[in-house]
Amino acid sequence: MTVDYVHGYSERETRRLRDQADTLAALLHGGTAYPDGSRVLEVGCGVGAQTVHLVANSPGARVTAVDVDGDSLARARARVAAEHPGAMVEWHRADLYDLPFPEASFDHLFVCFVLEHLPEPGRALSVLRRLLRPGGTATVIEGDHGSAVFHPDSPHARAVIDHQIRLQAAAGGDALIGRRLQPLLTAAGYDDVTVRPRTVYADRTRPGMVDGFTRHTFIPVFESLGDDALAMGSTTEEDWRRGIADLYRTAEDGGTFHYTFFKATAVNPPSGKPR
Amino acid sequence: MTVDYVHGYSERETRRLRDQADTLAALLHGGTAYPDGSRVLEVGCGVGAQTVHLVANSPGARVTAVDVDGDSLARARARVAAEHPGAMVEWHRADLYDLPFPEASFDHLFVCFVLEHLPEPGRALSVLRRLLRPGGTATVIEGDHGSAVFHPDSPHARAVIDHQIRLQAAAGGDALIGRRLQPLLTAAGYDDVTVRPRTVYADRTRPGMVDGFTRHTFIPVFESLGDDALAMGSTTEEDWRRGIADLYRTAEDGGTFHYTFFKATAVNPPSGKPR
Repeated sequence: MTVDYVHGYSERETRRLRDQADTLAALLHGGTAYPDGSRVLEVGCGVGAQTVHLVANSPGARVTAVDVDGDSLARARARVAAEHPGAMVEWHRADLYDLPFPEASFDHLFVCFVLEHLPEPGRALSVLRRLLRPGGTATVIEGDHGSAVFHPDSPHARAVIDHQIRLQAAAGGDALIGRRLQPLLTAAGYDDVTVRPRTVYADRTRPGMVDGFTRHTFIPVFESLGDDALAMGSTTEEDWRRGIADLYRTAEDGGTFHYTFFKATAVNPPSGKPR
Repeated sequence: MTVDYVHGYSERETRRLRDQADTLAALLHGGTAYPDGSRVLEVGCGVGAQTVHLVANSPGARVTAVDVDGDSLARARARVAAEHPGAMVEWHRADLYDLPFPEASFDHLFVCFVLEHLPEPGRALSVLRRLLRPGGTATVIEGDHGSAVFHPDSPHARAVIDHQIRLQAAAGGDALIGRRLQPLLTAAGYDDVTVRPRTVYADRTRPGMVDGFTRHTFIPVFESLGDDALAMGSTTEEDWRRGIADLYRTAEDGGTFHYTFFKATAVNPPSGKPR
């Protein structure tokens, strides 16, 4: 099947994803380190924004990184080669529903900002579980745009976020998927599902977060969608511009921004248990 | 002045506030401990839901607890006497804008779930700062209903939350005040303002949080407001009931609930700095 990504693959998008990963790396990757020699599957690696942190935190693991998009995969490969020349990464261009690996060939699965794009995230988790050995672990990280809370509050800014949620839904995805990770993993047959919020908060006392998250990660997701939102006919150019401007106001002095990512870990049941 | 509380002081409300405080104590009070002999002012202690944790975590501090409501204050006093017989707490019934203490008479100020009710939270913080010695600290904790994210999502449930936000606003308060703590404290003249999210997440793998927070803390805030919401004329009994039922569904198997409290610490500038 073809996966329709809401996000494009422009240079700007590549830079945005890289900025996001660097700023958020500690928040998102904290607690994720795999033993030497363990076989780790990263599905939907995109341009390698998370792969670089995976290999940095688990230098002895054998990472297999997969993406459906050949261009993204080439960029990811180049980036990892440049930043971590010794990293043991195998790269595969493949559809996540039809991966070229035998059952139970991985110890760990890592999926970050991927399920939000999929029409069938539950089926994806179920299919991927079969690639894990019994007792192997899955780590899944997703955002949830419903958690965006900011000051000054603005109906125009909230409308911009709502437009993105609708666009993502129209493309078959779910920008509110973070809150669903626990039931999705449970329904897909995983055991020991643990979900924890990883909350970003930015105000003038944390300029790195304001710049790295609010200004250069969160807002650009929406800024790049103006044409699509206008084409959908549910906003006007003036309203859209005002919404984006109001989002940028939250990055000024006296502004605040809050957003929660959800990080899940889960275990493929040991053999003997029904799969 | 008279402070209009959205919440009542029924027995049920007292129990709710107690359940909330116990479940959330570790999350909210973590990091708050005052040295032996230090003078701590708790403003708006209500029925003592936070006071018991203050004295438990700072057994050697000299706590002064204030509330404008005599009945609440009596309950708080009885509760602290029962749970912490040796605690050094002075109780005062007084208006927080007109407290009977000289300037600079406290080392620390503690304010939890109070600003949300005040028409002038910034003035309150400014007035209270004068009671702190130079270099004294303030700790302020508030929720923000805009951070409520749950599964299954429901427009009816969201409408119920929106009604509460409007009712609180009509009473002069702000149920979205958490996001504003940093600018409010800064404008009130405090230094070293640090705000951090304290995020609650509940799903079936955390039954204590589901029960203590979702079912017995969060939802009852709204359940008790049905009559007021109907009186306001912006909902119907059927819609309200459905919204409440949908909120309860988030506490069932497969449901999830997310909410963020904001905890701020700040310092009254040392003498020599303009106040």
